[in-house]
Amino acid sequence: MRLSIIVIGDEILLGQVTDTNSGFISRTLGQYGWETARVVTVADKADDIHRAIEICMADSELVITTGGLGPTKDDITKGVMCDIFGGPMIFDREVAANIREVFDLRGLKMNPLTESQAMVPTSCRVIQNRLGTAPIMWFDRKSDHHVLIAMPGVPFETEGMLVRTVAGEIASQFAPDTYIDHKTLMITGITESALAERLEDFEASLPTGLHLAYLPTPGLIRLRLDARGTNGDGTDKVLDKAYERLCNETGPYIIYTGDANAAEIAIHAIRSKGLHLASAESCTGGNIAHMITSTPGCSDIFLGSVVSYSNCVKTGVLGVESGVIERHGAVSSEVVAAMAEGVARLTGAECAIATSGIAGPGGATDGKPVGTVWTAVLTPKGTETFVRRYPGNRQRVIDRASTEALLALAKKLEVI
Amino acid sequence: MRLSIIVIGDEILLGQVTDTNSGFISRTLGQYGWETARVVTVADKADDIHRAIEICMADSELVITTGGLGPTKDDITKGVMCDIFGGPMIFDREVAANIREVFDLRGLKMNPLTESQAMVPTSCRVIQNRLGTAPIMWFDRKSDHHVLIAMPGVPFETEGMLVRTVAGEIASQFAPDTYIDHKTLMITGITESALAERLEDFEASLPTGLHLAYLPTPGLIRLRLDARGTNGDGTDKVLDKAYERLCNETGPYIIYTGDANAAEIAIHAIRSKGLHLASAESCTGGNIAHMITSTPGCSDIFLGSVVSYSNCVKTGVLGVESGVIERHGAVSSEVVAAMAEGVARLTGAECAIATSGIAGPGGATDGKPVGTVWTAVLTPKGTETFVRRYPGNRQRVIDRASTEALLALAKKLEVI
Repeated sequence: MRLSIIVIGDEILLGQVTDTNSGFISRTLGQYGWETARVVTVADKADDIHRAIEICMADSELVITTGGLGPTKDDITKGVMCDIFGGPMIFDREVAANIREVFDLRGLKMNPLTESQAMVPTSCRVIQNRLGTAPIMWFDRKSDHHVLIAMPGVPFETEGMLVRTVAGEIASQFAPDTYIDHKTLMITGITESALAERLEDFEASLPTGLHLAYLPTPGLIRLRLDARGTNGDGTDKVLDKAYERLCNETGPYIIYTGDANAAEIAIHAIRSKGLHLASAESCTGGNIAHMITSTPGCSDIFLGSVVSYSNCVKTGVLGVESGVIERHGAVSSEVVAAMAEGVARLTGAECAIATSGIAGPGGATDGKPVGTVWTAVLTPKGTETFVRRYPGNRQRVIDRASTEALLALAKKLEVI
Repeated sequence: MRLSIIVIGDEILLGQVTDTNSGFISRTLGQYGWETARVVTVADKADDIHRAIEICMADSELVITTGGLGPTKDDITKGVMCDIFGGPMIFDREVAANIREVFDLRGLKMNPLTESQAMVPTSCRVIQNRLGTAPIMWFDRKSDHHVLIAMPGVPFETEGMLVRTVAGEIASQFAPDTYIDHKTLMITGITESALAERLEDFEASLPTGLHLAYLPTPGLIRLRLDARGTNGDGTDKVLDKAYERLCNETGPYIIYTGDANAAEIAIHAIRSKGLHLASAESCTGGNIAHMITSTPGCSDIFLGSVVSYSNCVKTGVLGVESGVIERHGAVSSEVVAAMAEGVARLTGAECAIATSGIAGPGGATDGKPVGTVWTAVLTPKGTETFVRRYPGNRQRVIDRASTEALLALAKKLEVI
């Protein structure tokens, strides 16, 4: 089943805003067996929107548009829909009631511009947008049964409504009896190509309807086992069995059974052992704390962090002896170990992570090129340190070092 | 002049990687007067690439493709180019020499797969890619003088080579005598619509060739005054004059003359006063430190941060009296002021920022809904605090609170 996505919006075409909706839609509907044929980004211009829709509907059973539905841009996209699918626009009472509800929830007052969002083409079926004011519109083209769904541009609304309602309605219209599920496994400590080699036989032996997807991120590979079948044909049990085999095949590299990012994996490991975390960050500059605290509900395990960017904070706050810094340099095993022990003492945390390195572009010295990072991991079992040289620019070095530190801690706790 | 961008790559279409190249190209060439007509993302499939190129070249003087040029995908995109522009592929010695140089620089060994990247269509002119191994290929279509430029997919290479070489070559081919320049101004403390109202007369009175662009980000508006003319026609002086007028019109809201993000603006203000910064972060959880330390060379002004996520770190490390927390709550003016003073005392910094709030989704209390954030700004003039209620999800609250804290500090220092 072919899917095309049309992203509507000057701000995206001009490069002021980066589109993330298309990727989310592609990932989500991919699990339902949809293959994304193309993504087209066009301006808030009737001709451009019209042309993109025609091209996409010609070869795709499903076309999803995002954006172009705000109260000020409204007429353009909706007008194009009326041109293509026929019929006028009418005032929809249910949509108006939904808009009023959303405004009440936010404590805002309606204005005439907002009221205009309740005008919808008669040719569509409305799916109420519970997360915003722009109605979601479903158009059926009778000649070839191709479908166009117009969704809002705000990622929070598009993502939320796709998962809550729209994906399910698409599935029930296009493949009503289809059984779809997946199981995820997080892998670390092996390259994607080495993992693919290791899993060659496993993949070859997968029964029909099962498919293994590799989703690599820096330092962490997400393995997703997708299953498709017919309701009641036993595909669920086939998936369970294959997942069990996948776990056996990848045993030593599994860091989490399920779907999670590095911070969530570390939080889970610490929480399940009843421990607490603190970090002492030099080159990662607060990014580890930021990754942890981006996770809602982390406050039960995370106590805090000391970003010791200057050596005087390393000595004065974390209690690292200045002689140790002089003898070994700030980027050394001895200093990160002392930083981790210092922040654990200071906060009372049983687990700590510390980093010190050269994120670049400046700061390289003989024997310590840009990308060199020392990391310490402290758990109730003791303190261990390791050194890496990460490739890439400043941001990539910071990201990689943060991810690897969090995963190293999770591994040490041996929750798996 | 119409530009179309074609993004080639399964990983982008599947939503595994978010495309940022198209936005960068659009922003960069927009300054040279190019209007982006559309962005099309397609898979690594010959038919899809072929079709996208045909559609785009029909109505765009310039088409830029990114991606589809790695050593393993090579044949597909290059093969399509040969189909469209004619001629075979040949081994290009100069390209091979460039690849060898790039490999030497990275300390890597060539392999046969890499060597194949030196095969290029005879129908193109090669622009050597100094930042990677995939050659940049420039195709001229004689029938209508439309141009296609194939660039690599790695953002670091595409961005770097566009700015270094390719944008200049495009300008010299399409508009050889064009003078292009711009000046930027950073604005805060006013909404985009109120600013637009204030600048209505200014915009209306701008001489031909000058254009004002609004580039809003949360908490900060970038105003870019673009100028286009002919070399030697005095447009440079017209730009300088208009920029001076723009500065007068926006006076009280200017936070920086030039182009900079919130962290860079704060760093600049602190550095120019010869001061130092530390932060004490509760709800922003290290994000302020992360924003500061993402800026290369910040170590001369940034001493460090204490992320005091738990109250025991607020009292034990920052020295906030527990009675103050009990009386006023952790999210209060009194506590953020004490946090800022605590981290200044601890690190010896003359400037400090502190935040405490409810980032959500949980944690709201009576009178303190999700999004409530108290911020303290400490400078040699004293400590001030303010409270805001930021809309949006957890990540947006953290981002907004961090940005506003950095800008509040910069304002307080009155460098402007």
